Amino acid sequence: MRAILSVSNKSGIVDFAKGLVEKGFEIISTGGTFKTLKDAGVAVRYVTEITGFPEILEGRVKTLHPAVHGGILARRTPEHLAQLNEQQITPIDLVCVNLYPFRETIAKPDVTFQDAIENIDIGGPAMIRASAKNHESVLIVVDPADYSEILGNLGNVTSEYRKYLAQKAFAHTAAYDTAIANYLAPSTGLPEQKTVELNRVIELRYGENPHQKAALYREGSQKGAVLDAEVLHGKAMSFNNYTDAEACWNLASEFDEPTVVGVKHANPCAVGTASTLAEAWQRAYEADPVSIFGGIVSVNRPLDADTARALKDVFLEVILAPEYTPEAFEILSKKKNLRLMKVAQAPKPTLDYKRINGGFVVQEADTLGLEGIQQSVVTKRAPTEQELQDLLFTWRVVKHVKSNAIVIGKDGRTTGIGVGQVNRIWATEQAIEHAGDHAKGSVLASDAFFPFDDVVRTAAAAGITAIIQPGGSVRDEDSIRAADELGIAMVFTGVRHFRH
Amino acid sequence: MRAILSVSNKSGIVDFAKGLVEKGFEIISTGGTFKTLKDAGVAVRYVTEITGFPEILEGRVKTLHPAVHGGILARRTPEHLAQLNEQQITPIDLVCVNLYPFRETIAKPDVTFQDAIENIDIGGPAMIRASAKNHESVLIVVDPADYSEILGNLGNVTSEYRKYLAQKAFAHTAAYDTAIANYLAPSTGLPEQKTVELNRVIELRYGENPHQKAALYREGSQKGAVLDAEVLHGKAMSFNNYTDAEACWNLASEFDEPTVVGVKHANPCAVGTASTLAEAWQRAYEADPVSIFGGIVSVNRPLDADTARALKDVFLEVILAPEYTPEAFEILSKKKNLRLMKVAQAPKPTLDYKRINGGFVVQEADTLGLEGIQQSVVTKRAPTEQELQDLLFTWRVVKHVKSNAIVIGKDGRTTGIGVGQVNRIWATEQAIEHAGDHAKGSVLASDAFFPFDDVVRTAAAAGITAIIQPGGSVRDEDSIRAADELGIAMVFTGVRHFRH
Repeated sequence: MRAILSVSNKSGIVDFAKGLVEKGFEIISTGGTFKTLKDAGVAVRYVTEITGFPEILEGRVKTLHPAVHGGILARRTPEHLAQLNEQQITPIDLVCVNLYPFRETIAKPDVTFQDAIENIDIGGPAMIRASAKNHESVLIVVDPADYSEILGNLGNVTSEYRKYLAQKAFAHTAAYDTAIANYLAPSTGLPEQKTVELNRVIELRYGENPHQKAALYREGSQKGAVLDAEVLHGKAMSFNNYTDAEACWNLASEFDEPTVVGVKHANPCAVGTASTLAEAWQRAYEADPVSIFGGIVSVNRPLDADTARALKDVFLEVILAPEYTPEAFEILSKKKNLRLMKVAQAPKPTLDYKRINGGFVVQEADTLGLEGIQQSVVTKRAPTEQELQDLLFTWRVVKHVKSNAIVIGKDGRTTGIGVGQVNRIWATEQAIEHAGDHAKGSVLASDAFFPFDDVVRTAAAAGITAIIQPGGSVRDEDSIRAADELGIAMVFTGVRHFRH
Repeated sequence: MRAILSVSNKSGIVDFAKGLVEKGFEIISTGGTFKTLKDAGVAVRYVTEITGFPEILEGRVKTLHPAVHGGILARRTPEHLAQLNEQQITPIDLVCVNLYPFRETIAKPDVTFQDAIENIDIGGPAMIRASAKNHESVLIVVDPADYSEILGNLGNVTSEYRKYLAQKAFAHTAAYDTAIANYLAPSTGLPEQKTVELNRVIELRYGENPHQKAALYREGSQKGAVLDAEVLHGKAMSFNNYTDAEACWNLASEFDEPTVVGVKHANPCAVGTASTLAEAWQRAYEADPVSIFGGIVSVNRPLDADTARALKDVFLEVILAPEYTPEAFEILSKKKNLRLMKVAQAPKPTLDYKRINGGFVVQEADTLGLEGIQQSVVTKRAPTEQELQDLLFTWRVVKHVKSNAIVIGKDGRTTGIGVGQVNRIWATEQAIEHAGDHAKGSVLASDAFFPFDDVVRTAAAAGITAIIQPGGSVRDEDSIRAADELGIAMVFTGVRHFRH
């Protein structure tokens, strides 16, 4: 029996090779694997010995030879075996090949385009694919984790297990070529054909609901924020924890000033910003002391003891922070079930995917911040400095609320949030109702323009003094006229932030 | 100059080959492509002539030979060319290979596992990958759409264009191996590594917002419902049209009886069900005559003239129906901007993906219908037959409303929908408020259990008579006691339908 071994990940390869030799295998190898095995005293032949063809073109064409591929691809029928015999080709029964992850090549800080291309493996994938096609007769091993099971079952491998190995093999080559194709394509491009490589990070207990199985996947080698957050304390994160935490962290990340965000069901319920985190938390808590129960909180500064002492009295599922002071950690880690997550900075997302049956709608992620908006005052009265500050605060919040969204706020905190409504006036009424007395003197942000002047009139009646919205409705004039009439200052951004 | 041509998609290949011959290329080919070119009178050599190796193993090892791969992979440096010369290998300058889509192999109704495996191409991907790696020196052509541009620019191809061809080539092999890996894996599995193949269906004008580029993609060869809907009339669908239409169609598909659903911002605003579609529309319209403005409507029956006449008076963006009677189509197609979509039945979705920065949380789709729930009466009073019908109606609706969700309804229509709220009591209050007088005598469905008895008490105060909810709270007893006290019939489903 003959095996070809040529691996990038050399973990366990020596023991595996020794095990194969014990079972009577002849080992063929190339390059670094050959050297590793030879150095470890394993009986191993160099691949050129069996091809009889010299190693040319700096090793580019070592295994792309009928002596290798005939040996792999032959069915074990009398006809095929006779043909091999005639060509003096020995059948190959096991192929153990794995590829140096292309994404690690391109992740090196000083890699050139030329280096990256040079690192694309041609011979390895050809052997993997050929073996996986002929998995009925050839064991294809791409994962060191499978070595011991294979050694234990040699001569007795079920067809189910062979199929499992073949599936892994094609997933390995598919992922490899995906990484190359994405490297060659512009990162925000939406080309005719693309593949997305998913690597499981953890299995989750279940999905949005207990009857749905679920897992967390990394795309290629991308870094995430929440995806890569470290669980410093508490239980494992659930599916809904992940999606809520993502919404929570992204909103907190909009702010440079110390900011605290509370989220429930992927929507913010309270946001506070101030000169200290403790004060920001106080503002957020006052914004909605009810909904925060069982919620998720993000802070955008190292979490300090003052803030921790205030947070510990509230029932929360998860806290996300870039860092915890030792004292803060001690205070919060006394709560057994509270998850304390440490989140590192991550690159902004590029593409956003929404599932629809049979496929996806894919779009560039909405990463537009304050730098991307106009601030055109369209009313007679311009906002005061304080109003402008409040407007820009609520604008950053409304971007993260599901549409139709209205956010009202003042003095560095939200006072009312209208979420996910099927018409804009209901979102307005909801935000005002939840604000109660705090509506008076608040400002209002809307994620999309006003089709009528009803939002302006309802806002004014509640004592709201300034409004920020995209503008662009054919009836903008109606809203501007109403605002002027009622003494409201209104700013257009020229940018919409629908989010569903 | 030498070119290898071996294509599954033979469209345009003869003209391309003739063009190459005119430019001085020697053409090498195999299999069906060889025959096509030969029959068309193109000067072409069979690949075994250049390898000097016989075609063995039923053609499995034709091109996996140094004479081919050395010719492709050699850099055009004096050293590499000297090595080719020594081995009597001629450089190959252009490779035109495309693969028979594996997904079409497995889509054939009578395909066996053996056939599918036999159809996995090994030599083709190896040539594509080798050429794409060496794209600096080799033109790799996988798409007939590129033939004329290449013929026009031969001898003058920019490195940008070479990179574009290489990107397409790796996308082609990545997609091919993805299809094979997914064929070998269980369809609802969440394996360690998986790739998702996306094929662009259309470019969209923009994404959720005008500053985001977007496109619609099919996954592999999956069939969708809305994704594959035919635009019979009106403008092209927008990104938000697609996501709204998806939500709308999926909800309408829950019902066997004639049903009409109205959606705004991916949430239902009104649902009506009756013995005729026209009556179902009337009920839906009465449920919320305001929010439906500019909305999307789905019907689950061929759309008839009676219904069309009623629909035409409302401003809608999109109508989705399995079919339109000629008269209905005539009535509705008079509205220039209204999109009329014809939606075919599609398999239920298997996996659902939610984007988080750096990756995805992936879960089994929530396809659980009424067949999957318990109907345990937990109160002293059981629901009447009419209440039970209304409960099952609202339960099917609440599954499609973003959480926290409360739906109230009666007599085959929703009366109030509380959407996307950060706490459950607000969702309840919202549903009741929008119902106005219709709350009285309605029943209530909740997508998740009640942590307190407040929802029951608020519902009873509004005149609601029966409730359906998952149950499973540690305080279920409180809610049951309140319901018994207030004469409400309550049913537990044992199933939750969070949806975010």
